[in-house]
Amino acid sequence: MMIDLRPIALVIGILLVTLGAMMFIPALIDLALGIPDWTVFTASAVITLFVGGAMALSNWGRTSNLSIRGAFLLTTLAWMVLALFAALPLYFSDVNLSFVDAFFESMSGITTTGATVIIGLDVMSRGFLVWRALLQWLGGIGIIVMAVSVLPMLQVGGMQLFRMESSDTSEKILPRATKIAGSVTGLYLLLTTICAIAYKIAGMTTFDAFVHAMTTISTGGYSSHDGSFAFFNTPSIEIVAIIFMVAGSLPFILFLQLIAGQASPLFRDSQVRWFFTAVTVLIGSAFLYKWGTLGTPIGDAFRESAFNVVSIMTGTGYVSSDYSTWGPFAVTFFFFIMFIGGCAGSTSCGIKVFRFQVLFQHMQVQLSRVSYPHGVFTPRYNGRPIPGQASRSVMSFFLLFFLCFAALALALGIIGLDSTTALSAAASALANVGPGLGEIVGPTGSYAPLPDAAKWILCLGMLLGRLELFTVLVLFTPAFWRI
Amino acid sequence: MMIDLRPIALVIGILLVTLGAMMFIPALIDLALGIPDWTVFTASAVITLFVGGAMALSNWGRTSNLSIRGAFLLTTLAWMVLALFAALPLYFSDVNLSFVDAFFESMSGITTTGATVIIGLDVMSRGFLVWRALLQWLGGIGIIVMAVSVLPMLQVGGMQLFRMESSDTSEKILPRATKIAGSVTGLYLLLTTICAIAYKIAGMTTFDAFVHAMTTISTGGYSSHDGSFAFFNTPSIEIVAIIFMVAGSLPFILFLQLIAGQASPLFRDSQVRWFFTAVTVLIGSAFLYKWGTLGTPIGDAFRESAFNVVSIMTGTGYVSSDYSTWGPFAVTFFFFIMFIGGCAGSTSCGIKVFRFQVLFQHMQVQLSRVSYPHGVFTPRYNGRPIPGQASRSVMSFFLLFFLCFAALALALGIIGLDSTTALSAAASALANVGPGLGEIVGPTGSYAPLPDAAKWILCLGMLLGRLELFTVLVLFTPAFWRI
Repeated sequence: MMIDLRPIALVIGILLVTLGAMMFIPALIDLALGIPDWTVFTASAVITLFVGGAMALSNWGRTSNLSIRGAFLLTTLAWMVLALFAALPLYFSDVNLSFVDAFFESMSGITTTGATVIIGLDVMSRGFLVWRALLQWLGGIGIIVMAVSVLPMLQVGGMQLFRMESSDTSEKILPRATKIAGSVTGLYLLLTTICAIAYKIAGMTTFDAFVHAMTTISTGGYSSHDGSFAFFNTPSIEIVAIIFMVAGSLPFILFLQLIAGQASPLFRDSQVRWFFTAVTVLIGSAFLYKWGTLGTPIGDAFRESAFNVVSIMTGTGYVSSDYSTWGPFAVTFFFFIMFIGGCAGSTSCGIKVFRFQVLFQHMQVQLSRVSYPHGVFTPRYNGRPIPGQASRSVMSFFLLFFLCFAALALALGIIGLDSTTALSAAASALANVGPGLGEIVGPTGSYAPLPDAAKWILCLGMLLGRLELFTVLVLFTPAFWRI
Repeated sequence: MMIDLRPIALVIGILLVTLGAMMFIPALIDLALGIPDWTVFTASAVITLFVGGAMALSNWGRTSNLSIRGAFLLTTLAWMVLALFAALPLYFSDVNLSFVDAFFESMSGITTTGATVIIGLDVMSRGFLVWRALLQWLGGIGIIVMAVSVLPMLQVGGMQLFRMESSDTSEKILPRATKIAGSVTGLYLLLTTICAIAYKIAGMTTFDAFVHAMTTISTGGYSSHDGSFAFFNTPSIEIVAIIFMVAGSLPFILFLQLIAGQASPLFRDSQVRWFFTAVTVLIGSAFLYKWGTLGTPIGDAFRESAFNVVSIMTGTGYVSSDYSTWGPFAVTFFFFIMFIGGCAGSTSCGIKVFRFQVLFQHMQVQLSRVSYPHGVFTPRYNGRPIPGQASRSVMSFFLLFFLCFAALALALGIIGLDSTTALSAAASALANVGPGLGEIVGPTGSYAPLPDAAKWILCLGMLLGRLELFTVLVLFTPAFWRI
């Protein structure tokens, strides 16, 4: 059975129209400020609206339901096409980016990675900075909607654990996604506004407050300053950032329930508890090292540890201090915490806490069976038994994650990147973090000097990581196209 | 129920007696050559025989059957106690090793790792060199016997896939191990002799031929020269090494069947096929890089790629050329192939091929289900369905492996090792390879300059890796001791 492309074209068309409409925001800002780049945004908006409108209108009302395979194709295609059109204003602007640089920046934006090829952010036009932040903000909504409505049904990497109703079928994907998108967007907008106000009170300019609010709640990490958070160097601003980076790493669906008056799901959710435990332990380790071993004053040690651990673990990628100069332990430490990520159903990426929980449960069952050979042990997630199918999905995800990591790192090595850069850039892209390690892609470096081939590879890595690997890789299996 | 320590003491006693008896081999060699160190070996032999004899005799005939928990305790304790006594002659010899260095060298020996703290091997006494080689040789037999008779019944890391009969119970562990040990030792001795003769024909001295035969078949990697295989720099010697390193990475049980006239299990075994495929692809990749990118002459490129890839992937750890100078790709490449290892039931370590097969099967099932949602797919290993229990064991192993890797690397980082050294030494110890990367522990370096704390951590890593992690870690669970 051929995949019906009409619903796919319809959805991508609607998404492009939304993206095109969004381009008027930077256009209006630049127009108001008298910056000539407003024409670039307007032209890009017209192109995007035209293409998107044509795709949507020509398939309107003629659509059948989306099949499972169609949903896979839609997901990957949508992300690629959006990255492509979102790159247009970056490419045509007077920043003079090459096409690969514009696409890299755009892909890094909508996947909420935050790796940047641009140096000189402080003197960049307002519209340009807003567009980068908007991309991460939109990418954040996109991934939450997907994680709640699409991925559980595609049974990707154990996401079936988050199915709402067992009767859910693929026919319901689109209606569900549309329904969810509304409430998610409202809440997301609310959180962003609160975050912006908090930033403003903590001392940011109104512009910086809004730009950073958008990239904080989406755990994206784009900043309007080359120095990232070291530019502000203000404890209260960092506290606001920590709070909202953490908020961006929690399951959004639980916030919706909280608003509906149900506080207990948020506080009882085992993934949330594990996440907070991990954050606490990791901040504590970094703090002890920095205070105990390096002799940093206790206040600074705590502040720098808390901010950078939360930023890297959640995949945001803000930098307040160059942790690669904290000594050998810190380098290895930050390399590993890149992989962790936040909770499923949030804007953060990486392996994610629930997958460690699933594997840990299985490990515990194995260990218990040694001491009680005749006992019956059932691995559980959030109190419910984990279906064998979900366990196997998680297992496949782990293998895929390390295979993709190895493949990306080796490919970067072939291009000529040294092992620290290759390994950390691969991990950073796959986990949608942003900064890597080493002089080039490290916390104070930039992706700009990398060869074009490396940038394309990292774009692929960001896409793979954002779509939980499987969603993209399944398109490369012959069986997907055969039937 | 308390664990009955008597059968454990009996078995460790017998193993110590064997180890003590083996010490007379280097003693006799040194005595014949008039080297005063023969007294050290004799004294160590007497101590070891005395302790071992006392343990064995006082528990003789009074033993009950070994429980599952007893088998876990026995396995870990045996390896630790043997490493301790095997370190005696190294510690007392006139090489003047510190205690931690002697224990590190001994643990690296019996776990067939091959990491060494000794510089100046070329001028070392014959007895000393033979003892190091013998330790790896004995460690090799030990692990094969364990992999065939003990681990499948302990259901460690998916090893239950290699159970002979489903009716096997823990009571049969010791009789089975004893029975298997005989035939394994005979075959192992035969292969070692053939390997030594081949080395001799290829141009080694008789002494070097025997020393290297013992450390090749055990995929150990100790050499009698600081330069390892670069000392010989002879293609025919390297070919012999490649053949027997590969032989040491194949399931020994299949060799036994081959001798019994059944050739087909060896050639039909899917793990063996995957192993050869992986070796071929990896040698090909290294060769293409070295020839195509670095411009090494085609013959040298092939020779150096083949030798070093086989040596590192099988966890042997011989070095014929400093691959860390082959450029950035090679460093990343050799880092990853350290993890792979050989086949289960061989002397090699690492994650092992069958675990990748199990995970890959699950991944394929996941992918197939996307295209055929109503199809029924069963993950298979060697033609037989993989029991859910075995899959979950493999999954736990993967998580444990990466957790242990991260924990070891972080611990080494805290001690002050740079990230390349910390990451590669942790991986190299856990996968029982030997050399790591970087200036200190790299192919031309030595573990000698590391701080004592790092050496203890690496000893733990080697033990964990050799005993498939789980066997050691289960002893640290409260439930193991509670009942």
